[in-house]
Amino acid sequence: MTIRTVVWGENIHEQTNAIVRSIYPDGMHNTIAATLNRDPSISATTATLAEPEHGLGEARLTETDVLVWWGHKDHGAVEDAVVERVARRVYEGMGLLVLHSGHFSKIFKRLMGTPCALKWREAGERERIWVVDPGHPIASGLGDHFVLEHEEMYGEPFSVPEPLETVFISWFAGGEVCRSGMTWRRGAGHVFYFRPGHETYPTYHDTTVQRVLVNGVKWAFNPQAAHTGIHEAPNVPVDRAPEPIVERGPKLHQPGEAGYR
Amino acid sequence: MTIRTVVWGENIHEQTNAIVRSIYPDGMHNTIAATLNRDPSISATTATLAEPEHGLGEARLTETDVLVWWGHKDHGAVEDAVVERVARRVYEGMGLLVLHSGHFSKIFKRLMGTPCALKWREAGERERIWVVDPGHPIASGLGDHFVLEHEEMYGEPFSVPEPLETVFISWFAGGEVCRSGMTWRRGAGHVFYFRPGHETYPTYHDTTVQRVLVNGVKWAFNPQAAHTGIHEAPNVPVDRAPEPIVERGPKLHQPGEAGYR
Amino acid sequence: MTIRTVVWGENIHEQTNAIVRSIYPDGMHNTIAATLNRDPSISATTATLAEPEHGLGEARLTETDVLVWWGHKDHGAVEDAVVERVARRVYEGMGLLVLHSGHFSKIFKRLMGTPCALKWREAGERERIWVVDPGHPIASGLGDHFVLEHEEMYGEPFSVPEPLETVFISWFAGGEVCRSGMTWRRGAGHVFYFRPGHETYPTYHDTTVQRVLVNGVKWAFNPQAAHTGIHEAPNVPVDRAPEPIVERGPKLHQPGEAGYR
Amino acid sequence: MTIRTVVWGENIHEQTNAIVRSIYPDGMHNTIAATLNRDPSISATTATLAEPEHGLGEARLTETDVLVWWGHKDHGAVEDAVVERVARRVYEGMGLLVLHSGHFSKIFKRLMGTPCALKWREAGERERIWVVDPGHPIASGLGDHFVLEHEEMYGEPFSVPEPLETVFISWFAGGEVCRSGMTWRRGAGHVFYFRPGHETYPTYHDTTVQRVLVNGVKWAFNPQAAHTGIHEAPNVPVDRAPEPIVERGPKLHQPGEAGYR
Repeated sequence: MTIRTVVWGENIHEQTNAIVRSIYPDGMHNTIAATLNRDPSISATTATLAEPEHGLGEARLTETDVLVWWGHKDHGAVEDAVVERVARRVYEGMGLLVLHSGHFSKIFKRLMGTPCALKWREAGERERIWVVDPGHPIASGLGDHFVLEHEEMYGEPFSVPEPLETVFISWFAGGEVCRSGMTWRRGAGHVFYFRPGHETYPTYHDTTVQRVLVNGVKWAFNPQAAHTGIHEAPNVPVDRAPEPIVERGPKLHQPGEAGYR
Repeated sequence: MTIRTVVWGENIHEQTNAIVRSIYPDGMHNTIAATLNRDPSISATTATLAEPEHGLGEARLTETDVLVWWGHKDHGAVEDAVVERVARRVYEGMGLLVLHSGHFSKIFKRLMGTPCALKWREAGERERIWVVDPGHPIASGLGDHFVLEHEEMYGEPFSVPEPLETVFISWFAGGEVCRSGMTWRRGAGHVFYFRPGHETYPTYHDTTVQRVLVNGVKWAFNPQAAHTGIHEAPNVPVDRAPEPIVERGPKLHQPGEAGYR
Repeated sequence: MTIRTVVWGENIHEQTNAIVRSIYPDGMHNTIAATLNRDPSISATTATLAEPEHGLGEARLTETDVLVWWGHKDHGAVEDAVVERVARRVYEGMGLLVLHSGHFSKIFKRLMGTPCALKWREAGERERIWVVDPGHPIASGLGDHFVLEHEEMYGEPFSVPEPLETVFISWFAGGEVCRSGMTWRRGAGHVFYFRPGHETYPTYHDTTVQRVLVNGVKWAFNPQAAHTGIHEAPNVPVDRAPEPIVERGPKLHQPGEAGYR
Repeated sequence: MTIRTVVWGENIHEQTNAIVRSIYPDGMHNTIAATLNRDPSISATTATLAEPEHGLGEARLTETDVLVWWGHKDHGAVEDAVVERVARRVYEGMGLLVLHSGHFSKIFKRLMGTPCALKWREAGERERIWVVDPGHPIASGLGDHFVLEHEEMYGEPFSVPEPLETVFISWFAGGEVCRSGMTWRRGAGHVFYFRPGHETYPTYHDTTVQRVLVNGVKWAFNPQAAHTGIHEAPNVPVDRAPEPIVERGPKLHQPGEAGYR
């Protein structure tokens, strides 16, 4: 079974910033997709902001098992209709990995229902990422921690809902900490936020980071058929109630009428 | 300390439907507010859809500790700007009780990040509400269950995020079940969903339901000062890092520049 | 990859009660193991109370990926040393399915840390099990609910810790409800409690129940190598701290000394 | 309403170690109790290992609302019967604060159901404690972080069950992190683990730590009457089922017979 994965990259700084371009000459999205494609169970392609519908048309999303999201410079340019489309697919079971600055993406804020804000500092400082939940599939094959010598600092409080699982916590040389790997469920979709990945550092060339990305895609994959019924609020008429009942008392709705939304 | 509470009622069916009007001649919002005001620690007023800004202007929300929300017929008529304003206040610490058909309100879906859909049937059937978490403040003073002889059925799956706590589960005569009392945290705000309350039945005149509403308001109250900083993503410059560090490597942002949102 | 599964059965009522023997002439443990073995990814054997070490010797447990537990009549007869051994293996990553009356087994109470009590009634009444989390692997392939025409009633409050996930909730004809499928993590081990399975009814011959058991074993399987280090509380000496630090201030322990336990 | 609080101290190192005695000449338990007693809503007394029943007799526990636990040197000396008694009171609604080395106390391991192990280093290094959940009552009145200049390091993974809430995370100068404030519910009892408090440093003289202790006791207090029924698994006979049902099928138990435990 192949996990059909789309790596979405904003692809702005790779075009406009010489430093970023030098680190990711093919674009961050292509670097990440190439990493994922080295695993035989994953088939990864890419999509970017500049494409029509940001490369996330209805047909394509329907055939996507896991979406990986990296954006930073222009979250606001992502069309609301595409955000809703992605959210619906997550509810139906599509996995979602949100990377680094994607904490402020529309889709992440939409699914979390909170500000998703945090402290930050761009100083190329040392980040030491501790594995808090060593038995978690996303931590598979890692040691007790790993180090990124140069990263942007993200600091708590990170205003997300209490996660289902805290997998990683980061220590920063400048004194802050951050819950850098957390999971949530939204409908049938698995959501994983992974903190590292500032574009001026070679984070996605790090082999441990790459291992986390591969693990994350596998974990986020829901092999069930799409739960397309999740958007419905079906009426169950009296004559189809699981137990025989008799209708009683006053009511608002006529038979067959849809509920209010 | 008085808990400043606003009971928001859509107030449509009370005006347009004779049955609803006969049960709640003063409107559901006024019935609920009167219930809450019988508790000396609560000071409740009301707001309705038809008022300017739906009665939820900036100044009023700033002075609201807990908001109770009942809507059904016209969720779509609630202005998006008001929904955002309410969400921001929840993040800052305002409590929120969402009642019955409010599961499909904009504010609840906004905070949950999921469809919030469920099955339903309007047959005036018996609902038996079981206390799953007897030690929870919201269940204080209740027996092991209570019965509403006539209620609308709501059935699982109820597509909300896994709750922090499940307080009540309902049994319906027609054969379904529903998690009818659940809690979540959003920022500094406590959110409680309470299922009963179809407008064609006298649910909010039931003394046990009234007890739950009072308990819920007290539980949702966060006595801390508003966490107005929760919307910010502050930069922590190198010279103000908690530990002394030296800036290294390339960077995107100029000193003092705001982050991208 | 084959999931090495052990089905532990108390195997008392099958020997002493004619009704139970007539339903499970091979014993409940063998019926369940046969069910699991029909799935090509599972290799199931059995163990029973009467065997030396209850069939759960150190060597065998080390080679067990998932343990399924059914007990009822004589929980107290299970040796504490075996309970501790099973708990240790769960922490290391062995999956555990606890069935029905196993809610009062030593191992379940040991892992939950709570009384695990509930209401009960043996009346052969109808149980309707609702899928609350349709996207969960354990619910894979099920409809929105299934019915067991004759079951023992278990009723809330069920005094377990708030679960990681609520997968199933049961409706009973007599008016009660029960969270009948819940998950927890203990160390690296996945724990699933599944309610149905009173021995005087043919529950484990039901094909939907069998599907849940197979799904449950697959879900509980942690393919990682055993986390044998989870029992240790290692000292990290100053000269091996991840960041260079200088020892300061008074201390209790001499270099190389173990901590207190 | 006064919160009847007992501060339990092992009181060994204060008697045997000159350094500890110099920091806490009255014993750690008395220092903590004096801190709590400065808050008018708390009435704190103490109990120690050397007292009969460790000062935790049945009558006293029955009149205790919140128990604070500090132990280190001789966890094994605490009688199992007392541990069970304390656990039962927690289920009934008594709050429990477990401090520092209490992570390895019998009562904490009993309630968590996991090893509760972690890394450690006694080097007097700097601990910076970040508030992850600023809206939580336990964090009330704190800034975004506070510093303990000399503390023992505790490092992840800390093998506890996924908490209900993560309130604090610690940064250590030597490079580790630790979830240093977490909450769980066990029955009707609120449990809070708070990391700092190594006996060779003056941690409990720190005013911010003291504030956390006061906040913690208030948060852990459950004002409801003791849930003494939580230990029972009551049979609900057919003629007392909430809905009328007819007994069907074979059964194990005779009328009025207790269930197996």
